[in-house]
Amino acid sequence: MTTLALQPAAGATLNRWHDMVAAKDLSQLPTLLSEQAAFRSPAVFKPYRGAPVVSLILNTVLQVFKEFEYHRQFATADGLSAVLEFTAKVEDKEIHGIDMIRFNEAGQIVDFEVMIRPMSALQALAAEMGARLAAFMPAK
Amino acid sequence: MTTLALQPAAGATLNRWHDMVAAKDLSQLPTLLSEQAAFRSPAVFKPYRGAPVVSLILNTVLQVFKEFEYHRQFATADGLSAVLEFTAKVEDKEIHGIDMIRFNEAGQIVDFEVMIRPMSALQALAAEMGARLAAFMPAK
Repeated sequence: MTTLALQPAAGATLNRWHDMVAAKDLSQLPTLLSEQAAFRSPAVFKPYRGAPVVSLILNTVLQVFKEFEYHRQFATADGLSAVLEFTAKVEDKEIHGIDMIRFNEAGQIVDFEVMIRPMSALQALAAEMGARLAAFMPAK
Repeated sequence: MTTLALQPAAGATLNRWHDMVAAKDLSQLPTLLSEQAAFRSPAVFKPYRGAPVVSLILNTVLQVFKEFEYHRQFATADGLSAVLEFTAKVEDKEIHGIDMIRFNEAGQIVDFEVMIRPMSALQALAAEMGARLAAFMPAK
């Protein structure tokens, strides 16, 4: 898969991300993240911060999504941000979504933001994520 | 604002879109749309189709959003799709969102998809849009 006009280090990280997702194995994800990486959930405004929690959330999302597939890829002119369009299902609800990822000059992921539509799918995802992460996450 | 690596006709359309949004005047928007343009709402899965209804919806969204501002711009390698990151407020709720726009070779907008987060802002936007468009739109 093309890495577009991303800077080489960011492109290499994105390629490794795609490999991990394809293998359904995010165990090495922390090696791609900045220590202070932020995850911005489609459901809650306040970001979650720190490589361990970002890794936990993304591992859980990948388990919740069924029939997950990436489509178009977009990049900024500075080569340090990408948008990955995806489709998936949550509890038989079809989802359109995007991962919006910002990299630092070293190629580490510093910001991982997810948006999905429609609202019914977002509600189903939020409920499922909340149930799985209740033991780990602070109350909203 | 840079038009990134978009094809020239698509880039020209995107520049005109930015001018219209900056002027808060979308009266000429239909000239940028394919007759069969689709609008994909952040709230509802089924797309709305046709230049008149897409124009009506985008006019209404622009009225509902306060403090609307674009940030990063992303493009696909084929130069026919763009993602525009934005922030706005709806009823004092902060919104992060994206417009994901697909152009045809003639530079017309054929698909305009919007995603926003977090869920509370999406619910507020959906309620406000529903109230304003109730007279025009089919029931969900």
